[in-house]
Amino acid sequence: MADMEEWKDGLSAAAEDAPNFETQHEQRIEEMSRLLEEKQMKRLQSVLEETEEFEVAEFLMALPPHQMATVFRMLSKEQGAAVFAELDAQEQEYIINTITDSELGSILDELYLDDTVDMMEELPANVVKRVMRIATPQTRALINQYLKYPENSAGSIMTAEFIDLKKYMTVKESFARIRRLAADMETIYTCFVTSGDRKLEGTVTVKDLIMADESAVIESIMDSSAVFCRTTDDQEDVSGMFSDYDLLALPVVDRENRLVGIVTVDDVMDVMEQEATEDIEAMAAIKPSTRPYLKTGVLSLWRNRIPWLLLLMVSATFTGMIITSFEDALAAQVALTAFIPMLMDTGGNSGSQSSVTIIRGLSLGDLEFSNFLQVIWKEIRVALLCGATLAAATFLKVLLIDRLLLGNDSITILVAATVCLTMLVTVVCAKIVGCSLPMLAEKVGLDPAVMASPFITTIVDAVSLLIYFNIAKALLHI
Amino acid sequence: MADMEEWKDGLSAAAEDAPNFETQHEQRIEEMSRLLEEKQMKRLQSVLEETEEFEVAEFLMALPPHQMATVFRMLSKEQGAAVFAELDAQEQEYIINTITDSELGSILDELYLDDTVDMMEELPANVVKRVMRIATPQTRALINQYLKYPENSAGSIMTAEFIDLKKYMTVKESFARIRRLAADMETIYTCFVTSGDRKLEGTVTVKDLIMADESAVIESIMDSSAVFCRTTDDQEDVSGMFSDYDLLALPVVDRENRLVGIVTVDDVMDVMEQEATEDIEAMAAIKPSTRPYLKTGVLSLWRNRIPWLLLLMVSATFTGMIITSFEDALAAQVALTAFIPMLMDTGGNSGSQSSVTIIRGLSLGDLEFSNFLQVIWKEIRVALLCGATLAAATFLKVLLIDRLLLGNDSITILVAATVCLTMLVTVVCAKIVGCSLPMLAEKVGLDPAVMASPFITTIVDAVSLLIYFNIAKALLHI
Repeated sequence: MADMEEWKDGLSAAAEDAPNFETQHEQRIEEMSRLLEEKQMKRLQSVLEETEEFEVAEFLMALPPHQMATVFRMLSKEQGAAVFAELDAQEQEYIINTITDSELGSILDELYLDDTVDMMEELPANVVKRVMRIATPQTRALINQYLKYPENSAGSIMTAEFIDLKKYMTVKESFARIRRLAADMETIYTCFVTSGDRKLEGTVTVKDLIMADESAVIESIMDSSAVFCRTTDDQEDVSGMFSDYDLLALPVVDRENRLVGIVTVDDVMDVMEQEATEDIEAMAAIKPSTRPYLKTGVLSLWRNRIPWLLLLMVSATFTGMIITSFEDALAAQVALTAFIPMLMDTGGNSGSQSSVTIIRGLSLGDLEFSNFLQVIWKEIRVALLCGATLAAATFLKVLLIDRLLLGNDSITILVAATVCLTMLVTVVCAKIVGCSLPMLAEKVGLDPAVMASPFITTIVDAVSLLIYFNIAKALLHI
Repeated sequence: MADMEEWKDGLSAAAEDAPNFETQHEQRIEEMSRLLEEKQMKRLQSVLEETEEFEVAEFLMALPPHQMATVFRMLSKEQGAAVFAELDAQEQEYIINTITDSELGSILDELYLDDTVDMMEELPANVVKRVMRIATPQTRALINQYLKYPENSAGSIMTAEFIDLKKYMTVKESFARIRRLAADMETIYTCFVTSGDRKLEGTVTVKDLIMADESAVIESIMDSSAVFCRTTDDQEDVSGMFSDYDLLALPVVDRENRLVGIVTVDDVMDVMEQEATEDIEAMAAIKPSTRPYLKTGVLSLWRNRIPWLLLLMVSATFTGMIITSFEDALAAQVALTAFIPMLMDTGGNSGSQSSVTIIRGLSLGDLEFSNFLQVIWKEIRVALLCGATLAAATFLKVLLIDRLLLGNDSITILVAATVCLTMLVTVVCAKIVGCSLPMLAEKVGLDPAVMASPFITTIVDAVSLLIYFNIAKALLHI
């Protein structure tokens, strides 16, 4: 009762100055820090008990390592495991190294298998060895099986804890089984009906069970055409199925259609976040990493960024060679040089817009390679509109600002025409390159996200210069 | 039974050539198209009944409008509403315009409120009018209330259908209430305990109810410190709470702490997808749009892309002015011009890498403004490493390829040194600009995603040219 009263007091106080979620969250963490500082361990322990695992984990990660280990040991067995799963690999490693084998054993008992596997993938080899030694033989076998699934596959994100029912069970028997198993399950709201040889026969939701008669048989209420995926399916496709079908859990079957695990919606949300981050990083010419920025070392950041920078720098050599080969023309009409950055940048930006739009469409499944011609035709029309607008703006800007206002007499009408015509042709070419490269990459099995701004810019730079100098030669006879 | 047998046959067949989810999905759609073509309406109807709403919607959207309307009318009332919710605005509008008032009324009855509100936001005014006229007064009041919540707020994505319990109810009574209400609910697995004046007092999950004794009172098992959000909270913060706390549903309260709705996990997944798309589009200098690419008209695409292109083009004027002011120096050392694109591009790419990393960190909540100095210091070190690597590579490339291999004698050691030193300084400046602008944007309340590649590139272009020409003046005395 005290709790509830306190919470309602908090609520009424909240109503006055309407603090948002962030503020409540920070207040709780501040209170815990204060209690720890004042060594009020009893009170700290009772606050910890009432705090969500995610917040306890945040609190722990902000502490110096030795204090973190002390506070961690104050948690109950169940809460300890749940908090442990929320920690980053670095903190998990530190805690594993400071606790006894039996403490580690009881954490492993409580951890959900998918969290254990995630942890194993991040830990250094010697720590993995100790964990494997302490785990029960059954857990060890499961971990080994899981670690074999390819990265980013459904198998690598599934969990082995699920409620399986038989089709001859009654609703009443099913509830009894759910009640018995629920404590150890990540989700109970979708149950999976399997045959004697563990083949998946259907699914039944707790909602169906609640609405059915107690004596009804599972077979009569189960959904026998429920969607499922295979262990080898890509996690991105799996997350697509969750949003298409509004699922809470999806069964994962092996090649023999035996049910081997389930993917739950909370893991899918992590996948969505991770896949979006990977796409965004690839689009900015960075090798994707899974660690948060502040936890990534300077050397790792350098390693993730330098390969693309070097590659793109070398590619820019062609641009330099094009300029060199037109050196004489540039010397004859120095005014032309000043427009190079504007033409290259606008071309690059136009191309990036198209490529990023197409990349996102491909990754959300809105587009596929069969839309190729449709996309090109749409982009050409958009490019003509954009190009014409930009050319008109350029024409005005060049004549009014550069020639009249800044009094640059070397800018003749013909020079202005050269720049504007180049603008139009460059934008059209840039948008065609920008929309077609990601689709071609997808077709040949490369990651389309790589075909974003930096790559497109490098190609469009060379293309725009060639267009510029050739139009200049034709119009200005240089 | 026949269904299940068919499905298992399908499964065994599947095992042989292991078709993935895509294939099964396409086969079902092909079958439906074939039945429609052969006018086997009875069989089509029975296939439709067994098919997931999402797939029926996909099938409908591929049909010409008049056929779509015909097939839509074959669906049962419940399935019709669920399929309707999955259609795009364009198809929804067509169907609304072809059905009778009473048909529309029964769809509105069946639709979940949040789907109705989504639809209303997309429909043209005259169609909205008709829908509002036909809706029941109660629905109409709710729609009006919802439409008033700001875009992208928790209020705008919440649904009004939820199960509310009282704290004095027993578990048995609660199950009876759930059973009575479940059919109309989007989710039943989290129930919300409210006081007489509709204030939120706690939450209880169906898992808690299943595991509790039938005679237990809700008050004794409910979680009275459950997280909640306010109608005005940003949807991005709400989706952060879902992944932090692994929620299936989150209560939304108004300023008086009255429970007004809930946000469900399926809507949050849509939010995550939408927010990532918006970030990605903003990063590529595109005004975010919510329609899929193939459904967006050429004019809308143009309108979304041209403002940034024009703005960035005008900004590139400064770059042109810088080149013009150094025209004499360039004429004295023509070799310098050829390196301009490489220096500008590499600077732009380095800056984009930093800005995109920081933008993503900010949007995932890994970073905030208080990390400013920490971030700058990390980026400076990464920049020095990247800059040194790139400068060394440039030095080798310039001397070996440009001078020796291509025999360009105008490239002296001093020119090479100028280029390399510029590279180092440019990369450091680019990374500082790239990491600080998004954080400053966040601080002053702008969207950090705008401070990505195109914007950074434009600034870094000007900066790199200034660095280049000043180093050239100092080293080459021009």
